[in-house]
Amino acid sequence: MYRSHTCGELRDAHIGEEVTLAGWVQKIRNKGFMIWVDLRDRYGLTQLIFDEERTSKEILEKASQLGREFVIQIKGTVIERQSKNPQLPTGDIEILVSEFNLLNPSLTPPFTIENDTDGGEELRMKYRYLDIRRNPVRENLMFRHQVGMKVRNYLSNQGFIEIETPYLIKSTPEGARDFVVPSRMNAGQFYALPQSPQTFKQLLMVGGMDKYFQIVKCFRDEDLRADRQPEFTQIDCEMAFVEQEDILNVFEGLTRHLLKEIKNVEIGNFPRMTYAEAMKTYGNDKPDIRFGMKFTELNKLAQGKGFTVFDEQELVVGIAVPGAATYTRKEIDFLVNWVKRPQIGAKGLIWVKYAEDGSLKSSVDKFYSEEDLANWAKETGANPGDLILVMTGDAAKTRTQLSALRMHLANKLELRDPKEFAPLWVVDFPLLEWDEESKRFHAMHHPFTSPKPEDIKLLETDPGAVRANAYDLVMNGNEIGGGSIRIHDKQTQSKMFDYLGFTPEQAQAQFGFLMNAFEFGAPPHGGIAFGFDRLVAILSGQETIRDFIAFPKNNSGRDVMIDAPAKLDLEQLGELHLEVKP
Amino acid sequence: MYRSHTCGELRDAHIGEEVTLAGWVQKIRNKGFMIWVDLRDRYGLTQLIFDEERTSKEILEKASQLGREFVIQIKGTVIERQSKNPQLPTGDIEILVSEFNLLNPSLTPPFTIENDTDGGEELRMKYRYLDIRRNPVRENLMFRHQVGMKVRNYLSNQGFIEIETPYLIKSTPEGARDFVVPSRMNAGQFYALPQSPQTFKQLLMVGGMDKYFQIVKCFRDEDLRADRQPEFTQIDCEMAFVEQEDILNVFEGLTRHLLKEIKNVEIGNFPRMTYAEAMKTYGNDKPDIRFGMKFTELNKLAQGKGFTVFDEQELVVGIAVPGAATYTRKEIDFLVNWVKRPQIGAKGLIWVKYAEDGSLKSSVDKFYSEEDLANWAKETGANPGDLILVMTGDAAKTRTQLSALRMHLANKLELRDPKEFAPLWVVDFPLLEWDEESKRFHAMHHPFTSPKPEDIKLLETDPGAVRANAYDLVMNGNEIGGGSIRIHDKQTQSKMFDYLGFTPEQAQAQFGFLMNAFEFGAPPHGGIAFGFDRLVAILSGQETIRDFIAFPKNNSGRDVMIDAPAKLDLEQLGELHLEVKP
Repeated sequence: MYRSHTCGELRDAHIGEEVTLAGWVQKIRNKGFMIWVDLRDRYGLTQLIFDEERTSKEILEKASQLGREFVIQIKGTVIERQSKNPQLPTGDIEILVSEFNLLNPSLTPPFTIENDTDGGEELRMKYRYLDIRRNPVRENLMFRHQVGMKVRNYLSNQGFIEIETPYLIKSTPEGARDFVVPSRMNAGQFYALPQSPQTFKQLLMVGGMDKYFQIVKCFRDEDLRADRQPEFTQIDCEMAFVEQEDILNVFEGLTRHLLKEIKNVEIGNFPRMTYAEAMKTYGNDKPDIRFGMKFTELNKLAQGKGFTVFDEQELVVGIAVPGAATYTRKEIDFLVNWVKRPQIGAKGLIWVKYAEDGSLKSSVDKFYSEEDLANWAKETGANPGDLILVMTGDAAKTRTQLSALRMHLANKLELRDPKEFAPLWVVDFPLLEWDEESKRFHAMHHPFTSPKPEDIKLLETDPGAVRANAYDLVMNGNEIGGGSIRIHDKQTQSKMFDYLGFTPEQAQAQFGFLMNAFEFGAPPHGGIAFGFDRLVAILSGQETIRDFIAFPKNNSGRDVMIDAPAKLDLEQLGELHLEVKP
Repeated sequence: MYRSHTCGELRDAHIGEEVTLAGWVQKIRNKGFMIWVDLRDRYGLTQLIFDEERTSKEILEKASQLGREFVIQIKGTVIERQSKNPQLPTGDIEILVSEFNLLNPSLTPPFTIENDTDGGEELRMKYRYLDIRRNPVRENLMFRHQVGMKVRNYLSNQGFIEIETPYLIKSTPEGARDFVVPSRMNAGQFYALPQSPQTFKQLLMVGGMDKYFQIVKCFRDEDLRADRQPEFTQIDCEMAFVEQEDILNVFEGLTRHLLKEIKNVEIGNFPRMTYAEAMKTYGNDKPDIRFGMKFTELNKLAQGKGFTVFDEQELVVGIAVPGAATYTRKEIDFLVNWVKRPQIGAKGLIWVKYAEDGSLKSSVDKFYSEEDLANWAKETGANPGDLILVMTGDAAKTRTQLSALRMHLANKLELRDPKEFAPLWVVDFPLLEWDEESKRFHAMHHPFTSPKPEDIKLLETDPGAVRANAYDLVMNGNEIGGGSIRIHDKQTQSKMFDYLGFTPEQAQAQFGFLMNAFEFGAPPHGGIAFGFDRLVAILSGQETIRDFIAFPKNNSGRDVMIDAPAKLDLEQLGELHLEVKP
């Protein structure tokens, strides 16, 4: 062992002890006759002292040649520090160095290894091994480990068994694109990497394993939007002999346990909201309910008053922005332009200032009396001092647009407190959603999700209205997890494939193994999957998953540190029976 | 919830209670007026009773139509059982059924769901979801989970952090073949799946993470020998600021902990043996030391006596087989033929029977006096009643052949007690091994392994004699884990690539990121990886890893259940910029 103690360990009580430390040079102060070095490792910082009077000339000389990030091993005596540093756990002591061993020098790092580094994203990713030395990144990775252990121990104590499912499976065209793996031993054939262990966990239920979980990598070959990764980690779970209520209870229990154990936050029963209600009230199936600005529909109050912009629309909907009546013309114009950007795509934004003195002024004063506006204020729950913002148009689009505005304003008004946790269940998701491009219905969750029994009759007449036994766990405006009660009989499953446009042959070729399994005594079952990267980020009060992944990929799916992907040599391609097309 | 209790839960104390159970029909005994059904779930078996007098006609009728593996839910009263079954935890009670709900029927399973099934390997793999219902498979998977939890909690308590390393990395031609993954977004380029997280865990050490572990899938595209899988699981570990001794201590601690916690076996310090000693004494770098039959070199005693078969050979080596002096001519002939098979490839086998009465008789009586043979017996440690077997030839080959014979005999003589655990460390592995085919040295462990400092000078003169800081943990004749102290400076690492036949350009292209990282303050570090599948099998007293994997692949790398790998459609290939060669 290169050390007797870590750099975070020594205290008053160790004064007088001979110790050996090893670590990285964080900082050097050289006064010529005296040199202080901050030595860093995973566990903390310890100050080393070298001086003319008490340190040998040779060692002082060596110490004077140290640079940032050099790796050294020293022996010395723990002494009391002259000027103590109460910010540092080891701040009462320092080490008077008597032996010195340079383990490895370092080039000057391309960015500073500090909490606030001068390195940009690209440089930090290229030298990720240096970035990881920084406290914030290290703490994120350690936090992730801690959450993982808590999840595993909690589920294991609840009788769940972690079972590893295979990574080399079969490609299925449903859903996102698969990453594939050519087989050398089976010429012209390919494995696929799993987008999730969905079918395998269902087969484990057919196999009687009863309660399964796995913290597992999943893969999706999608065009990467911001903060998506081609490989990501899921807490994947499945239970047999359960109804939706059982799944919600177990995983609400897990989430409550994590919040209590990790954040010391106690939360009672999680609210539940139907998908329809969430869309109506927040324009979003993952509402952030830490703050208000709920949607109020104003069709009745606002239509038929001669303002044609409203009159012809499916929906007129407003929110009351707290304390924003004092916004200047410029600030309001900014918001109007913000919603008109192509990313949002709204045609405009109507505003009503409800001043502290109770007066009402709006961008539509020509069409509405102060009494009309007072009714809007009453309906939206606005108080004097608030700003009412109103949008209109096609219901679905307008809700999405107003939801984006609501989130933008919440960020601006700092209503999204990272220390507050507001989980809720969104339930009763639609089974199917219409896809304009392919002109057919797609499974909203996945094709294994069961319809609500009372809605099955609607499949023939109004497929879009059929609700599924599907649910999402939402926290602070993010989807943390989602799942469903599955279909467990062959007839329903094959009918579902039929609705989704599979021919019987396609269904059999791709999912025959699952439908066959359903014929040998499949139990009722259901499950859920949590996005582990996201969960860890949210629990940590952050939203960027990349900061919680040791070696993430960039938006082109590249690992810029190792420079992957890369070309293969022809021999290797040949063994795989492949040619790259020019 | 479909049940109030599991099928393994009910006891005497529950008599009189109304309960709801759900599970699979394991067995039906139908006497017409009375029907008993054994209901099974993950937790156990409970007997249900239906009878004319106490059960409604309708339910009795339904029960009479049940078949094996039907899934049912029942309500009923716990009653005392007439003829108790002390073999069964629930054997004191049975359930008098009052409500009955058929959840899912079952086709007749293609093999019996019993501990000893009538299903062959191929059929069991095709219907693995049914195979998993069998106790032995279920218990293996649950045991695996238990070992995984113990490993994680132990390492985490020791300050190790589990960090996920990427699965989509870069292909390197060193070592076994990689599985590769074509990139759609980077035309003509490929990721590779990791054969191990080796370079990433080293980068984590450069990044100051200090103690890393991960239970992680690894991938090797090898021609599959028996009991190898293209994807397998490793307990992967790395530590910074350590020497070989530190690694051995920590992972001996882990292994001792597992043996104590899981098997209740206490083991003192693990023996250590050099590679050279293991090869000389057991002909094998993973010796099973649960039994004797150590090798004795007989060159001195056996050469120069006119028996030319021995005289010209590098090695004459024997073992004393306990109690085998009574072997018949036929049994000995079998052994002679066994070693002559091409898989072993020996030219022959000399035997000496050391009878209980002290007399000695051999296949070489023409050349050796009874006194000569008595000296052989003395040297090999044979006792009266033992059989001495002697082989000769080139030292390396002969040792391998005799080792195979030793293991064969140990199995035959039942000397390999699955309840006994005999771990040991094999240390001082050679750094390089000569490859006849490519006529150059290869890294025996991998190119990141550090040579022993005192042997570095031999690199120029006698590369094959250079020992590495490399070690294996061996248990019961199996390699459980292996690792090394790594090179941590750029000069040594690039010299190593040079010895291994890399041009500087190749080394830079493939491992430049690692060598660059070594220039920014890399700490001394080392690690180990345990084969998790193997560890679990060995701890369970078995040797076949396939029985401990939920969904294994066959020897052609196929998953016969889902029928993977499979062909891709042309559109998907096109998106990946690939063509399959005819």
